[in-house]
Amino acid sequence: MSALLTDLYELTMAAGYFEAGKAEEKATFELTIRRLPARRNYVLAAGIPQVVEYLLNLSFTAEEVEYLRGLAQFRNVSPAFFDYLRGLRFTGDLFAVPEGTPLFAGEPLLIVRAPVVEAQIPETYVLSAVTFPSLIASKAARCVEVAGGRPVVEFGTRRAHTPEAGVLGARAAYLGGCAGTSNTLAGFRYGIPVMGTAAHSWVMSFPSEAEAFRQLRKVLGESTVQLIDTYDTLEGARRAAQTGRPMWGVRLDSGDFSVLSRQVRAILDEAGLTDAKIMVSGDLDEYRIRDLVNAGAPIDAFGVGTEIATSADAPAMGAIYKMVELDIQGIKRYTAKFSEGKISVPGAKQIFREGPRDVIARSGECGNGEALLRPVILGGRLVEPLPSLEEARRRAVVSVAKLSPALRQLEVAEPRAVVYSRELRMLVERTRRNLLA
Amino acid sequence: MSALLTDLYELTMAAGYFEAGKAEEKATFELTIRRLPARRNYVLAAGIPQVVEYLLNLSFTAEEVEYLRGLAQFRNVSPAFFDYLRGLRFTGDLFAVPEGTPLFAGEPLLIVRAPVVEAQIPETYVLSAVTFPSLIASKAARCVEVAGGRPVVEFGTRRAHTPEAGVLGARAAYLGGCAGTSNTLAGFRYGIPVMGTAAHSWVMSFPSEAEAFRQLRKVLGESTVQLIDTYDTLEGARRAAQTGRPMWGVRLDSGDFSVLSRQVRAILDEAGLTDAKIMVSGDLDEYRIRDLVNAGAPIDAFGVGTEIATSADAPAMGAIYKMVELDIQGIKRYTAKFSEGKISVPGAKQIFREGPRDVIARSGECGNGEALLRPVILGGRLVEPLPSLEEARRRAVVSVAKLSPALRQLEVAEPRAVVYSRELRMLVERTRRNLLA
Repeated sequence: MSALLTDLYELTMAAGYFEAGKAEEKATFELTIRRLPARRNYVLAAGIPQVVEYLLNLSFTAEEVEYLRGLAQFRNVSPAFFDYLRGLRFTGDLFAVPEGTPLFAGEPLLIVRAPVVEAQIPETYVLSAVTFPSLIASKAARCVEVAGGRPVVEFGTRRAHTPEAGVLGARAAYLGGCAGTSNTLAGFRYGIPVMGTAAHSWVMSFPSEAEAFRQLRKVLGESTVQLIDTYDTLEGARRAAQTGRPMWGVRLDSGDFSVLSRQVRAILDEAGLTDAKIMVSGDLDEYRIRDLVNAGAPIDAFGVGTEIATSADAPAMGAIYKMVELDIQGIKRYTAKFSEGKISVPGAKQIFREGPRDVIARSGECGNGEALLRPVILGGRLVEPLPSLEEARRRAVVSVAKLSPALRQLEVAEPRAVVYSRELRMLVERTRRNLLA
Repeated sequence: MSALLTDLYELTMAAGYFEAGKAEEKATFELTIRRLPARRNYVLAAGIPQVVEYLLNLSFTAEEVEYLRGLAQFRNVSPAFFDYLRGLRFTGDLFAVPEGTPLFAGEPLLIVRAPVVEAQIPETYVLSAVTFPSLIASKAARCVEVAGGRPVVEFGTRRAHTPEAGVLGARAAYLGGCAGTSNTLAGFRYGIPVMGTAAHSWVMSFPSEAEAFRQLRKVLGESTVQLIDTYDTLEGARRAAQTGRPMWGVRLDSGDFSVLSRQVRAILDEAGLTDAKIMVSGDLDEYRIRDLVNAGAPIDAFGVGTEIATSADAPAMGAIYKMVELDIQGIKRYTAKFSEGKISVPGAKQIFREGPRDVIARSGECGNGEALLRPVILGGRLVEPLPSLEEARRRAVVSVAKLSPALRQLEVAEPRAVVYSRELRMLVERTRRNLLA
């Protein structure tokens, strides 16, 4: 994992900390959800394994260090710093909320505590590695919520921001409750159920649709899903019905699904194929799924691409990675920023999930309810194996089910109560007085 | 490059083509921009090197083939297919529009022609590899356009959909006209200018802002950019002015930039630092940049993160990869789909850029103007080295400058004329008659 995959300012600051004799100071940084993404009532934490992999493998190659040394910004930096970089490893601690946990605005998702250079450099990578899958998992959970038990399959790698983002997006979508993915590498790598049968090109490659359907059934048997909208959907449905069993069912990829699904259902039933299923795909999102379900459309499964793979209506999240305290030879200094509209809260924290509200307390405080931030890496070593993807997915399902109905609906609801403990409020006040004195 | 990084249906179709005796049929697929992304008047082609790298390295490991063999969908597939997959390489052709070329709705960006399995499998990867950087380059070009010559620097890796997407996004943003990036690995890998100095954590890590400024200047010298909004922007500006030279300038990351930039300019000028520059960053997009420029705010450079790195207002593009013809033992069959609202156009094509309009013709037709689709890979081999990133960036600058002022503005304009040649129109009609007969 190249430590160069970071913003240059993390590295100029690293040089500065080193040159200012601060390399031994231990810093605590928190990754906090400043604002929920647009239209979201919660965010599902995800991406922790990618953060762990990154931190445990953080290092510079000799060639990368040479590259830095050649940059104008490093002209005044002493050779000792580059030696230091060559030997750099992550020796600190990571605390994180387990994957699949719903979080709310103002809550820290993870905490990194390490010598200041080791804690500063990861900022860029960690923010991206965590916010992207958290967005995707949250979007998937919304689609699954309104599908009312019908499977939602993630089909979006072609729209993902790089193919590899498609693999990690498929993982996140599964974590958020999707039944599977079209991404084969995600299946291979993470054991996620993979789904898919044929595209329009399959149908187009044969002289007739009927021939294409027969050939597909021959290869796929009971897995066969006939794609019936290449030329004319209802004609396609009749041909699929004629082709008959074995088949799982048919897929519609265009048109008015509410109308077409009923017509196709009638055609299949008429042919005695009452167990053949109907899947729909194409420009779906949680709102369209809800409308189709509410309209009673006889649809058995939804394939969702762009909207899940890019979290298209909220493709970014206002998360920050801020220094909250510094330990200078055993003396703590609490840090915060008070920029207009962009305030950060000092001191390492804990979140207690206490019935209908969350209490953000200082780390080490006693609290009621489940403490969400758990040690993951201590002293540069993994504390225990991470929860499996299946466990994270179960945690997501169970935790979302426990949220109030208002928070689970698609519309923006009154936010869940997130309050600071008395001790934390006192620390904020003290820090503000000290810093703005 | 794992050939498993694709949708499962590409692989079930591959099995189907093989089992149906179609593996020798040569297919031509086109990647076409079906609709321009929201609010865009053009799209800059990008991502061709990633497509080339993928195609030239396409293969399955033995373990990956075993994985497929174990899937329910492949239960009926003969062992010969898995042998075939083990030896699979890309032996076909790639034609593509050079990176940095503006394209419009309905235009093909690339063409893949190969034995049908080799041409089908790349669909998923190629769509993602091309549409993502094209979106980012196009978004960057919009920001650069309205900045009126002031540098726009891409700062968005932390918001990218995976850290690696940040690297490729930085490349695309540079291609689209950005002056540089904060992403250090993008600098190392692609030779892009890298920029960045210090974050709020730098300021927060010192007992006083003044001390933080002095220490930064000591390390960075003339590259120093003092970040002045950690506690109070105008106080910060006064401290930066007191700290003085050497410095490049200051950066504002919050507040009303139009007001603050004037106040900060006055403070710097008052201190004799008339050559110190002002950079702003934080929630910028092309509209805010235009407003600041139009308001005459004394801003020298813009740092743009989320909006460029995720193309936040248009994070996906309706591009399709469709089979347009099939060559079966020397006999051509033209293919198209006529799904509701999702029609594809048969036959391999060429785009001629003819003055104020583009003509989409059949491949091999004579035309006027520049022919945009060029051979890149022939028979599995790269024809000639790809244009460098600098060449692509120049092509983007020059080509965008040639577009009409209406197409270059931020608002949606009357689309550029894109017409089909007479021969292509005849082919469409003939194919429709044949297929829907």
